[in-house]
Amino acid sequence: MKTRLTELFGLSTPVIQAPMAFVAGGALAAAVSRAGGLGMIGGGYGDADWLDAQFALAGNTPVGCGFISFALAEKPELLELALARQPRALFLSFADPAPFLPAIRAAGVPVIVQIQSYRDACRVLDLGIEVVVAQGGDAGGHGRSRGTMALVAEVADEISRRGSPSILCAAGGIADGRGLVAALALGAEGVVIGTRFWGAVESLADRRLVPSTLARDGDSTVRTRVVDRLRGIDWPEGYSGRVLQTAFVERWHGDEAGLSAEIDAQQQRWTAAVAAADPSIVAPFVGEAIGLLRTEESAEAIIRDLAEGAARTLAALQQFR
Amino acid sequence: MKTRLTELFGLSTPVIQAPMAFVAGGALAAAVSRAGGLGMIGGGYGDADWLDAQFALAGNTPVGCGFISFALAEKPELLELALARQPRALFLSFADPAPFLPAIRAAGVPVIVQIQSYRDACRVLDLGIEVVVAQGGDAGGHGRSRGTMALVAEVADEISRRGSPSILCAAGGIADGRGLVAALALGAEGVVIGTRFWGAVESLADRRLVPSTLARDGDSTVRTRVVDRLRGIDWPEGYSGRVLQTAFVERWHGDEAGLSAEIDAQQQRWTAAVAAADPSIVAPFVGEAIGLLRTEESAEAIIRDLAEGAARTLAALQQFR
Repeated sequence: MKTRLTELFGLSTPVIQAPMAFVAGGALAAAVSRAGGLGMIGGGYGDADWLDAQFALAGNTPVGCGFISFALAEKPELLELALARQPRALFLSFADPAPFLPAIRAAGVPVIVQIQSYRDACRVLDLGIEVVVAQGGDAGGHGRSRGTMALVAEVADEISRRGSPSILCAAGGIADGRGLVAALALGAEGVVIGTRFWGAVESLADRRLVPSTLARDGDSTVRTRVVDRLRGIDWPEGYSGRVLQTAFVERWHGDEAGLSAEIDAQQQRWTAAVAAADPSIVAPFVGEAIGLLRTEESAEAIIRDLAEGAARTLAALQQFR
Repeated sequence: MKTRLTELFGLSTPVIQAPMAFVAGGALAAAVSRAGGLGMIGGGYGDADWLDAQFALAGNTPVGCGFISFALAEKPELLELALARQPRALFLSFADPAPFLPAIRAAGVPVIVQIQSYRDACRVLDLGIEVVVAQGGDAGGHGRSRGTMALVAEVADEISRRGSPSILCAAGGIADGRGLVAALALGAEGVVIGTRFWGAVESLADRRLVPSTLARDGDSTVRTRVVDRLRGIDWPEGYSGRVLQTAFVERWHGDEAGLSAEIDAQQQRWTAAVAAADPSIVAPFVGEAIGLLRTEESAEAIIRDLAEGAARTLAALQQFR
């Protein structure tokens, strides 16, 4: 399957693996890239030693690197570290990417910027970004409330109105070839997939939590700020993280005042539960597409299934012409 | 374009016009049906005289009728009234449809049931419903939080696992041929479209509010219970209505206690604003697809554009095979 995204990065399938913080390490990124997708290390909140180790794990396989922009702003040296590794692409999300563009462009690295609203898309298109990802709130992890379906088409319209050369990708609720073709229909030229790669055997997700998480349906996630509060990570206003709904998250979601009142005790409980992989408490950052998944797979099997599923879907659509 | 939906109802295009309460009258429903879609009168909260008048306006054109199930439960005589008009289909949403099925089936009328979660889909599939609509929270009006993208594919999987004969349609964030083809890719055989028909010249939306609403972008809506509180309509827990974000809605959204404390004064203000069509206060029930729309059109032009847009999208997808 050829799109401008596959041409830009030399991919066999127009799939970018989401640079999930703490989950997307060098092994996953390299496995995705070897299979023909664009593998990404999740630089997340920024830790130089961790990042070094993950690039080392990826070895000679070209992979990209993603950062949470507002966190990167506090540790700009990590951008230099990543650029020194000649990443295949630099992926920025969740804040103004402009301050980082001169250094990335000076290194000759393509930029991918993920936005969560039409208005943020307009700001990013003003910057002439190579790849713009429209991420719907259906996605796991951090984001905003816009749904994937209309957002992708609306950003495609904006790109078209401007005659912008930016390549559009879609994210949020997409886990298989059907979602990939749906994204192409809406005007995207590729997709960013997180949740399905979260469960990949090469991911750094706690393996003890993977089977029970894959068994849950798509109704079992919730956008909340509870997990950030428990981890002590202060996200900017307007963002929340979609996580698996657990009894513990259900107890505190919507009761942030109550959680604040006993935050020390609950943080201790959370930390202990993470160590023990307690599925009634720990809430992995997964999206609504969890309802489409059942089994643990290798990144290679995922990319192959995406390509084959997309081909099947495109063939099936012919009956409607 | 042929799908099992077009065959069941004799449509030229697999599009059901959403039975929007107070908005979808007989003129709109008939115009949609004449153009080759499935037009629906929005029975809404139930008013016998209004319903009679709207069926009269539709004249001899076959149209369907939709009800809000929990409201219909309080006025079961309206179902008899609607069935006596031999509607093309009966569309139920937002509560258990089971109590109404014997009467509808005795009348030989096909049933369409709209659900907003995977679990509700499973309950409905147990009932052997002819058409199941998976409605994402991207949609305008009442609904729940699941996004359209993953929900449609997840319900398609469930239908396939069961070998169920139910025909799946998608709703939420879909307004043009791109969305229609995306829905087909996800496994649906048709779409339910509300927001675009809200703005149609035949709709009962207040014309004074239409141009300013169509000018808003897709970031300009919000899921809230504020408008129901102002109208004094008590929706069941778990549902909210997506409306256009106005300064007034923004003031009260998330401050239901504050609104309750001065509900009489604010209800008066709301009622006066509705009469005056004040766009800073009145919040029409429209979805995120509002960002894909710009101009007022006839229902016929909308159906034609949906069909042509879908054909263009299907042709464009061929490049990816």
